[in-house]
Amino acid sequence: MQPHRLDPHCSIERALEIVRDRWSILIVRDAFRGIRRFEDLRRDLDIARPVLADRLKHLVDAGVLTKRQYQQRPARYEYRLTSMGMELSPILVALMRWGDRHLSGDDGPPVVLVHEPCGHELAQGFYCASCNQVFNPAEIASRPGPGADRTDQNTARPTSGPAARPIAQ
Amino acid sequence: MQPHRLDPHCSIERALEIVRDRWSILIVRDAFRGIRRFEDLRRDLDIARPVLADRLKHLVDAGVLTKRQYQQRPARYEYRLTSMGMELSPILVALMRWGDRHLSGDDGPPVVLVHEPCGHELAQGFYCASCNQVFNPAEIASRPGPGADRTDQNTARPTSGPAARPIAQ
Repeated sequence: MQPHRLDPHCSIERALEIVRDRWSILIVRDAFRGIRRFEDLRRDLDIARPVLADRLKHLVDAGVLTKRQYQQRPARYEYRLTSMGMELSPILVALMRWGDRHLSGDDGPPVVLVHEPCGHELAQGFYCASCNQVFNPAEIASRPGPGADRTDQNTARPTSGPAARPIAQ
Repeated sequence: MQPHRLDPHCSIERALEIVRDRWSILIVRDAFRGIRRFEDLRRDLDIARPVLADRLKHLVDAGVLTKRQYQQRPARYEYRLTSMGMELSPILVALMRWGDRHLSGDDGPPVVLVHEPCGHELAQGFYCASCNQVFNPAEIASRPGPGADRTDQNTARPTSGPAARPIAQ
């Protein structure tokens, strides 16, 4: 994929420069599942070694994974999520729940995520600490943040307009 | 990318067969922003026409977008999110917030998402309707769902083991 720099201020694009393809996301998923060693990842994902090595290096360089040698002869490595990597969990959960909801067919979801202390099913949502309520996406609006390019402020783009306004109408 | 079918029961993989690369996700992002016409998408994303046409067709076929002709001579089309497509918003918000947090640098996030009725910043989280509380990822566990393959139930995989257990330790 070509580098793409049209909107360098978009955090979604910045995030996608790191978790840049299916392999990257599936490697992170496996790390959450406890699959951390090169050979185990290769086998689980049925991925070519050079591709796996490339994606792992990219994720290590980006600070999502750390690389640790666990055996000397021959040299063997494992990869663990950093705290930055662990914070990818909302993305994986959102993908999983969307797949559960729309792509499970009649069988229903293969895996259910639960709140560990009580065992009840987990929900993921947007909430407002000020109103102390969970709300739906139709109530999301956007406004320029501190990192907004000043030259963007007067464009007609809904996400960089001067006032908070609804998105996804 | 090669089709990959090792774990057909994983909802994350199923989701990634549809939002399969950066372009697909950026097209959906643009649809949320109100950029819906082929030419506008092509310009905004600086994407080659055949690539854009391929991704749009895939997203339409999958039920994420609908295609509507808005002009006859010459024929011109626009693409709108279906309700299935609108439900991708948690994935986009999760990507955005991860990018905000880890990749914004000193400037801070370029855009802030807010709760439209009150204007306060949005949070995204996991919550338990039973306990009526928002909780952090360390309290997420998993158990087999109704669509779990019975042959998977006795494997050692954390996400398909017989009992709920914590993930991402």
